[in-house]
Amino acid sequence: MDTKRFPDDSLLRFPEWVLRGIGQVVFQNNPFSGLVILAAILFNSWIYFAICLLGAIVSTATAMVLRADRALVSSGLFGFNGALVGLSLVAFTSENFRTGAAPSPFMLAYIIFAAAMTSVVFSAIGALLQPYRVAALTAPFVLVGWLFLFAVLRFANIESGPLTKPVSPDEYVQTTQYLLPTWYMGFGNAIGQIFFQDNWITGYAIVVGIAVNSRISAAMALIGAVLAAGVAALFGGPEGAIRDGLFGYNAALTAIALGGFFLVVSWPSFLYALFGVVVTTWLWASIAVFLEPIAMPVLTSTFVLVTWLMLLAAPGFRSLIPVPPAEATTPEDNRKRVLRGPALQAA
Amino acid sequence: MDTKRFPDDSLLRFPEWVLRGIGQVVFQNNPFSGLVILAAILFNSWIYFAICLLGAIVSTATAMVLRADRALVSSGLFGFNGALVGLSLVAFTSENFRTGAAPSPFMLAYIIFAAAMTSVVFSAIGALLQPYRVAALTAPFVLVGWLFLFAVLRFANIESGPLTKPVSPDEYVQTTQYLLPTWYMGFGNAIGQIFFQDNWITGYAIVVGIAVNSRISAAMALIGAVLAAGVAALFGGPEGAIRDGLFGYNAALTAIALGGFFLVVSWPSFLYALFGVVVTTWLWASIAVFLEPIAMPVLTSTFVLVTWLMLLAAPGFRSLIPVPPAEATTPEDNRKRVLRGPALQAA
Amino acid sequence: MDTKRFPDDSLLRFPEWVLRGIGQVVFQNNPFSGLVILAAILFNSWIYFAICLLGAIVSTATAMVLRADRALVSSGLFGFNGALVGLSLVAFTSENFRTGAAPSPFMLAYIIFAAAMTSVVFSAIGALLQPYRVAALTAPFVLVGWLFLFAVLRFANIESGPLTKPVSPDEYVQTTQYLLPTWYMGFGNAIGQIFFQDNWITGYAIVVGIAVNSRISAAMALIGAVLAAGVAALFGGPEGAIRDGLFGYNAALTAIALGGFFLVVSWPSFLYALFGVVVTTWLWASIAVFLEPIAMPVLTSTFVLVTWLMLLAAPGFRSLIPVPPAEATTPEDNRKRVLRGPALQAA
Repeated sequence: MDTKRFPDDSLLRFPEWVLRGIGQVVFQNNPFSGLVILAAILFNSWIYFAICLLGAIVSTATAMVLRADRALVSSGLFGFNGALVGLSLVAFTSENFRTGAAPSPFMLAYIIFAAAMTSVVFSAIGALLQPYRVAALTAPFVLVGWLFLFAVLRFANIESGPLTKPVSPDEYVQTTQYLLPTWYMGFGNAIGQIFFQDNWITGYAIVVGIAVNSRISAAMALIGAVLAAGVAALFGGPEGAIRDGLFGYNAALTAIALGGFFLVVSWPSFLYALFGVVVTTWLWASIAVFLEPIAMPVLTSTFVLVTWLMLLAAPGFRSLIPVPPAEATTPEDNRKRVLRGPALQAA
Repeated sequence: MDTKRFPDDSLLRFPEWVLRGIGQVVFQNNPFSGLVILAAILFNSWIYFAICLLGAIVSTATAMVLRADRALVSSGLFGFNGALVGLSLVAFTSENFRTGAAPSPFMLAYIIFAAAMTSVVFSAIGALLQPYRVAALTAPFVLVGWLFLFAVLRFANIESGPLTKPVSPDEYVQTTQYLLPTWYMGFGNAIGQIFFQDNWITGYAIVVGIAVNSRISAAMALIGAVLAAGVAALFGGPEGAIRDGLFGYNAALTAIALGGFFLVVSWPSFLYALFGVVVTTWLWASIAVFLEPIAMPVLTSTFVLVTWLMLLAAPGFRSLIPVPPAEATTPEDNRKRVLRGPALQAA
Repeated sequence: MDTKRFPDDSLLRFPEWVLRGIGQVVFQNNPFSGLVILAAILFNSWIYFAICLLGAIVSTATAMVLRADRALVSSGLFGFNGALVGLSLVAFTSENFRTGAAPSPFMLAYIIFAAAMTSVVFSAIGALLQPYRVAALTAPFVLVGWLFLFAVLRFANIESGPLTKPVSPDEYVQTTQYLLPTWYMGFGNAIGQIFFQDNWITGYAIVVGIAVNSRISAAMALIGAVLAAGVAALFGGPEGAIRDGLFGYNAALTAIALGGFFLVVSWPSFLYALFGVVVTTWLWASIAVFLEPIAMPVLTSTFVLVTWLMLLAAPGFRSLIPVPPAEATTPEDNRKRVLRGPALQAA
């Protein structure tokens, strides 16, 4: 662990770390990716833009106050779960899911505590997974998101709208035909839904934000969204859920994570990633059913579950070359290092 | 980890590995056990016979394609969860639970992916548990089974029958009297239910398959089934559930696992196993209630939970001698090695 | 691990170990704390008094029979989960929650098995958490409590009353005004509810029992209860739930655990503990909602979850000094050792 503490330039570099944090939602440790993504969110809603920024600021600052490892903070790793928790708390308590509603003072205090808690949970899950060399992914967001979303409904002083967004495929009409917009809107929405943005143009702009840092990651995100929509359609999933990108947002994240980021790009690892995308697509529907009795959204739990299982399994399969989280940069870089140096060796 | 890769004889030995996989459902690394068990299933239904074989073939082949450790593959350890997942997906989507229905092409593709996924999950859970020297047991089957069973209900193109089999003791009439068939059918059905076979003769034939490899394991399976039925009756469990073997199939597996396989046979370990059987019997009912809101079957989750807890605890108790998973062969063999050599020492 | 076995004085010292076990519910390894707490429970109900003693005796004796580590047994660490499981099984199956009902012979056998099982689960969870240097807390009680509470409803021969105690804030009227008794009764009840005692005088007496061993722990317990009630009121929680101490019993335990016991007392760790108390208060409501579909009580699960996360995270934050479970004695002592010797170093 890096023992260097925060020197004088911390305040100057803080905005950069926050932007990296927003990029890290889609595995891009690059402030320009973060900037493009923020702009894409602003295009959809200034409320979500402000909340996304607030969440990343609070969770990054919490880590600094608690004197967390500087290398982790400056890579934005404490920011992305805070951003997502802020977005989810607003999204699921707003009358209008698409634009979000400005939170009340009580709700704001609540969001700030939730974002701070993601930094604690990120450190906790990181400690649990450290022996296995697997990253926490968005698990801190999923855990804190679920717990705080539940509790919000219990308190009279937090006004919460109904959960107006369907959270399970059951809530869509089964008989609608697949049309052209099912596809081009569905692919974009799948990327947008990662940030709770129900806007397909925002989704494609986020892909551009990813491509700023890694073309392979951008391509994998699209491949994930397309394959998920295809599989859902082949098995008769409802048109509305496909068009809203619901089958695809977990699948797109699985595709980025397994497609070169935590496993060196190769034919076997590419096929392994596609297998993961198909399984993620099905299991999104599955976890939605699990959560129905308590009326909770899936968030990115399917991505976390499938990617964890497939990365934990990887060292046992000699056709795959895992990249330890601390060394994972971009698919392009990971591959170069392996081709150059001696092969990374799984434990 | 064994680094030998699959040499030329892999294709020749593949059928043997698949048969060992079927034997491993009940902890028997012996192709003849697998053969007897397959014959017992065929006696009940050719559909289950074919699906059991298909599941074991797919999951074993997946492990080979991904270049998993040969020692694990050739012991059948990648096969048994695949076999069980195939059986469960057919059992719980068929109009007639007892004989099963031939799956549609969509369902078949789905089963193949599920069986392949068990190999990934087996490797993942194995990695998680490796520091604790505890085996994955049937956890990959339970996890993949639940997730894929849920999702199946979401897709229009997979025809799924109603869950026609009661999955919880609540669904049985409480007032029926215990009669002779309650017992002799109940004991056999408990063993049969391990493989989703609602046929008490098949159950006893499976005991014979176990005895081919280990008489102690066969005896423990019966002791588990008998004690479970007795405890359930003593506490007033419904007659139908006892006769169908529902209280007993998890208990029988707990009895085999703790009765000499992962703990060296001795008086303390025998009493520890009996304690585990009683707890498993009660907790089967408990987990059924947990799962009722989402209408899911217990599968072998109770066995996995209780056996994991009791094996994780074992190194802390000096009256027990644990056998590491990699060294566990048969109760007879485990005991001989300990009596011969220096005592195995718990950490 | 200590390899000394139980010498001749075991029987003589057994009552002391049982009393320490009762003190350990609130982290006090002191037989006099246990004695005061037992007296406080007896003041409320002789049935709970007897069951609390029985649970601690059974689980401690189980650990001795299985030849567990003597140092753990003689610190009362095998006793506290057994005591809590006994209390919970009586509390939630009695017509009158406040006084409890004497259990039937079937129920008694069931409680004895449950208490014995907590010793197995304590050892199992201890093994799982050992690499992370985090204690099992009351997780064995929560897990065994849930599983055995569920199962109890399935068996005709165990008479179980209705769950007469509200287990979720939804069940209280939202419109009642906060009055003086809301506060002084609410704070006491929060401490009492740790032991399922719906009696605020008993609660304050338990605080005295804690103070016998550590004034800091006693103060933290009260701070936890007060802060929880304040936060719940600020966010509009129902008056009845606050007065019954339901928001506070998990928060009080979190406050003791983080307030000097597992983290050396300092300003940062004190603020960290207060943050944990606020989060615990909210999440108690959250977990109550999670459990509503299956009608289960929260028990101390919120305390376990939040405290585990915050302790797992602590070594990653250089502003906190964790105390390994094996070295944690009292907040006063932990702090003295650090000030005297070289600073404890987080991994």
